Amino acid sequence: MNKIAIAGAGAMGGRIGSQIKKAGYDVTLIDTWEEHVNQINEHGLEIETETDTYTIQIPALLPQNVNEAYDLVIILTKSMKSEEMLQTLYDRNALHSDTALLTMMNGLGHDERFSKIVPQTQIFLAVTMWTAGMRGPGKLLLEGTGSIEFQRADGQADHRTEVIHQIFNDAQLNATISDNVFKSIWSKATVNSVVNPLCTILNKTIYEFGSYVHSREMIQPIIDEIVAVAHGRGVELDPQLLLQKIEDSYPKETQGLHYPSMHQDLYNRRYTEVDYLNGQISQYGRELGIPTPNNDMLTHLIHQLEMKWVQ
Amino acid sequence: MNKIAIAGAGAMGGRIGSQIKKAGYDVTLIDTWEEHVNQINEHGLEIETETDTYTIQIPALLPQNVNEAYDLVIILTKSMKSEEMLQTLYDRNALHSDTALLTMMNGLGHDERFSKIVPQTQIFLAVTMWTAGMRGPGKLLLEGTGSIEFQRADGQADHRTEVIHQIFNDAQLNATISDNVFKSIWSKATVNSVVNPLCTILNKTIYEFGSYVHSREMIQPIIDEIVAVAHGRGVELDPQLLLQKIEDSYPKETQGLHYPSMHQDLYNRRYTEVDYLNGQISQYGRELGIPTPNNDMLTHLIHQLEMKWVQ
Repeated sequence: MNKIAIAGAGAMGGRIGSQIKKAGYDVTLIDTWEEHVNQINEHGLEIETETDTYTIQIPALLPQNVNEAYDLVIILTKSMKSEEMLQTLYDRNALHSDTALLTMMNGLGHDERFSKIVPQTQIFLAVTMWTAGMRGPGKLLLEGTGSIEFQRADGQADHRTEVIHQIFNDAQLNATISDNVFKSIWSKATVNSVVNPLCTILNKTIYEFGSYVHSREMIQPIIDEIVAVAHGRGVELDPQLLLQKIEDSYPKETQGLHYPSMHQDLYNRRYTEVDYLNGQISQYGRELGIPTPNNDMLTHLIHQLEMKWVQ
Repeated sequence: MNKIAIAGAGAMGGRIGSQIKKAGYDVTLIDTWEEHVNQINEHGLEIETETDTYTIQIPALLPQNVNEAYDLVIILTKSMKSEEMLQTLYDRNALHSDTALLTMMNGLGHDERFSKIVPQTQIFLAVTMWTAGMRGPGKLLLEGTGSIEFQRADGQADHRTEVIHQIFNDAQLNATISDNVFKSIWSKATVNSVVNPLCTILNKTIYEFGSYVHSREMIQPIIDEIVAVAHGRGVELDPQLLLQKIEDSYPKETQGLHYPSMHQDLYNRRYTEVDYLNGQISQYGRELGIPTPNNDMLTHLIHQLEMKWVQ
């Protein structure tokens, strides 16, 4: 895999791309934000960590200026922008018949949407615990540590799996090849589908949400719906573990003082990713005949708030 | 019925009380708001209508100063204050064995709570379409027109029913004796249980709420839950009619430009009446084994917001 592209080079894409670049690989950042792309090309990508600030030179492109093929494309756009990005890359011949297309985005159903454009044998799914922040065009804030789990979407291993693993580990991204990446994706999506919309609707930090004496009664039915839908799709989740994972995020010492990313999106007047979390769960529920009243209601409430804040 | 008391003499209590007083009856206003009570006693109750402003003399009392019995007591406190009010009236011998206790409050379950203190044969239930506003202590804004339906809580007629009917009609309150007051109470409670919490959670006017393209998909499941619970309690509601009633309130020409009363309560940092609407429906659902996920979620969301705004 000589040529690697990061499609969607915001905070997370910038982190993954810069770490792979630092490991000596040929990396190109692709993003629709023109000011960001220009800044990176003219002044490099500036990275602030807990201890250090430095600049790394990486080529950056607008999607419409892509003019070569890549062996590995890591998709890290906003969920609702990913199909458009992939279509542009496809149209510009950025994908060849052996390109590994790896999505590391939050949310559910990306493999299904992508497989309308490229064969499922080329699609890899990843879930990451790394975080990252943007300080402005061309400027990242990279703190903390994380990990990546990934697997080919159809569960099969192939020659590219080991190569991707090597790249990630050269880049110190702490990666493992999963034998059940859907379980990890659904687990993360469950946490996000509970905490994100509720804190957004209520305009509360995670700690403030968890301080309500009946918070467990609020979230248990949402978890139960997701576990039932996942089960209907052949993914077995542990509701007890998910409940604990969510409640572990309440204390101020863990995630409590934060607003979830959906909250940041909405109140910064951007569309949220609710359709890839609760909305996707509702959609799968309808297909399976499994009622998902809580996820339906949360999806509608967020869309109602998008009407108020974004439109 | 020589002596009539209005227990809870805010906007609606003031309207009902002043109209009955104007018809020549002996009316006493009872309220916990000291400044309001003093203002009424010192300067009379000032009433502004569409065409006129006038003052009417009515005696007002704090509950703890009540020292005689009444033949008709109309309860119009906030729902959560009604049991305390009734207990005080009971303790101060304001109720005799033939007193008609009539609740005109919004919400569900008042008859059950009251029947812990007085026999059900003394309890009358009313539902009203009159509205009223407060302009400050001792000052009311009375606009528009309305009606009242009422019935003894156990469905039986008695000598007091006709007398109350006469009093209301002398007071031009446009009253009818219902043969199914629970249906009317549940119908009004359904409308309130849909529009009130949703507009409050979303901080939207009724029009803004209704402008969402999927608003019908949002409210239909809430209505369906309430219809199922009502059915379980022997009250047959028409879901189609309720949907239409709610959707008829969306246009700017009808109720659309208003925020519901629950919204006004919350953002004026007062506890809402959600426990007498969605919360009571959830409670009945639990007793009947009928799932009410939408009403559960709405109740929790409002309580979460009360933590933020009131406490």
